[in-house]
Amino acid sequence: MFSMDAIRRATAFLDGRVRRTPLEYSAALSRRAGRDVYLKLENWQVTGSFKARGALYGLHCLMEEGHAHVATCSAGNHGKGLAWAARELGAEVTIFVPSSVDRSKHDAMRAMGARVEKSAYPGYDETEAWALRTAAERGLPFLSAYDDERIMAANGGSVALEVWGQIAAPPPQGAAPTFVFPVGGGGHAAGFVFAMETLCPGARFVAAQAAASPALKLSLARGEAVTEMDAADTLAWGLEGGLGARPFEVLRGQRGGSEPGGSNLGSSDRIHHVALVTEPAIRRAMRFMLDEHQIVVEGSAAVPVAACLAGDVGPEASRSGSHGASARSSLGPLVIFISGRNIDAETYLEAVSG
Amino acid sequence: MFSMDAIRRATAFLDGRVRRTPLEYSAALSRRAGRDVYLKLENWQVTGSFKARGALYGLHCLMEEGHAHVATCSAGNHGKGLAWAARELGAEVTIFVPSSVDRSKHDAMRAMGARVEKSAYPGYDETEAWALRTAAERGLPFLSAYDDERIMAANGGSVALEVWGQIAAPPPQGAAPTFVFPVGGGGHAAGFVFAMETLCPGARFVAAQAAASPALKLSLARGEAVTEMDAADTLAWGLEGGLGARPFEVLRGQRGGSEPGGSNLGSSDRIHHVALVTEPAIRRAMRFMLDEHQIVVEGSAAVPVAACLAGDVGPEASRSGSHGASARSSLGPLVIFISGRNIDAETYLEAVSG
Repeated sequence: MFSMDAIRRATAFLDGRVRRTPLEYSAALSRRAGRDVYLKLENWQVTGSFKARGALYGLHCLMEEGHAHVATCSAGNHGKGLAWAARELGAEVTIFVPSSVDRSKHDAMRAMGARVEKSAYPGYDETEAWALRTAAERGLPFLSAYDDERIMAANGGSVALEVWGQIAAPPPQGAAPTFVFPVGGGGHAAGFVFAMETLCPGARFVAAQAAASPALKLSLARGEAVTEMDAADTLAWGLEGGLGARPFEVLRGQRGGSEPGGSNLGSSDRIHHVALVTEPAIRRAMRFMLDEHQIVVEGSAAVPVAACLAGDVGPEASRSGSHGASARSSLGPLVIFISGRNIDAETYLEAVSG
Repeated sequence: MFSMDAIRRATAFLDGRVRRTPLEYSAALSRRAGRDVYLKLENWQVTGSFKARGALYGLHCLMEEGHAHVATCSAGNHGKGLAWAARELGAEVTIFVPSSVDRSKHDAMRAMGARVEKSAYPGYDETEAWALRTAAERGLPFLSAYDDERIMAANGGSVALEVWGQIAAPPPQGAAPTFVFPVGGGGHAAGFVFAMETLCPGARFVAAQAAASPALKLSLARGEAVTEMDAADTLAWGLEGGLGARPFEVLRGQRGGSEPGGSNLGSSDRIHHVALVTEPAIRRAMRFMLDEHQIVVEGSAAVPVAACLAGDVGPEASRSGSHGASARSSLGPLVIFISGRNIDAETYLEAVSG
């Protein structure tokens, strides 16, 4: 069973081994949203994304079990994190990647000494199926990028504890905070929501997905995890593909999923709103981060920013729009999770110059 | 007299008030240089540059003396730092800026509540002369961006103590480290070199300047501070203009400046080498930082990167080139100071897309 104990163990292990990234105030987003908006800058984490957390802790756990060589499948960030973790901890890793893998991530994994093998498939899910078969044939343990409670504890839970320490001093006044984060396989989201719900009852959670690959939205509507999706062409390749079964069990909430009548809202007991963003909105959000913060973000990291720029963070925010300034001032802070910056320069420049 | 005591006081004040920024390993630069290269990422500091350090400490000192309203002159980063500091400490600031000020910096200063007044001059030195006269007329104390020992202690000294803590654990093996940093007015350089020389006798210091505005190079050749320069058109506008008299007294070294015979080398007892970089080299270095690190740097911050990409870090590095791998392995680590990221998106995209 997933638990705060598991999250605290992961957090304690990571303390001093990964960076404590800043929570940066965004004047530009605060003006637009009519409330204080902060960015949790995990794009400044070691290896350029929060995935270094789960990779390091997950590999450590597997090594404790006696494994010296581990396999995984990754569109890039988890793989880059695991390549770094292997060097830090002295292990070997084989990383299976989709044929569409971003050049900067691919090269970085190899430069850190990982064995990288490209699949015949551009999509994540087909690549992962092949990776699981191949790892089994070779007798290698497989560290999932998201469908694993150790990963959920480290990638999401440890971030929640860190963010809570940063916004709770001084403690937020008035209304509870809202957290907006991208969802792909769901590992970060599940760990983050589970921990933050315990730390801050009343917190609101908004999941942002690329409209091209809305696995969480579909899963909540169906009441079961949609673990496989057709390959989609999106700038948010880190979010492309299905949702993990274990993360979904956490995200759907403890009462067993949404009722048929409410399922079209794409919400659950734990996720208050799912925002779907288009490709042009992702590009605009990437440019916004350059214009206003001089910060490079990859497409996946721009997805929750795009949701905020569109004002698509659920009913609470809409209410403020109609009630004016006094209602706005009662809104709690909004914290956007910025997940990574690993993107090829050509792809980046094309996206932000459009 | 400038002293380690002054530096330790500034550092103690700043502890917990500004960010401890990461020292990031650069695999790409290490491959090129044949030695370990690290980036001290002060572009990730609060306000987007290291100048927040000096601004906060300098303003604190002036407030301790009873001032509630302070004036300064800045091409942007010091001004942005001071606007932030004024909000943090509850003071008022008036910031005089050149007519050529970067839009993103100008807007950020105003957004944080500072009074910003544009001069009739594009260059820093003429703007500063006007700013000093105007501040005196209004009876406002003037906090120089560089020619001030409190600024030197905070902008340079506190960074040296922080960097030393980061590279000294584990302690560097073999040869002493080399530090490469940009020099404009000289405030950072003077404080950094003074402190690091004490912490790490034998360390090497390489100053990098835009060829368009080489005040330190000229000052070392003449044996006196060149405090005024004609306005120059450079992407490194943060380094444009003359060198401060107080920083020069520190940088020229204790034996009273370089000998006539050695002055053409542009070195001193304390500065081992001055590298001058061209505008195209600055652009290439900005692009390199995007390609290899997914990090936005402003022109001034790219200047020391450009010097390293050109291999222009003084005789020690040239020696390694001729003696091959075994000589290379005896080179100590090289640490590049990355000063800031405050640049307008249009200017940035034009620079890196060329």
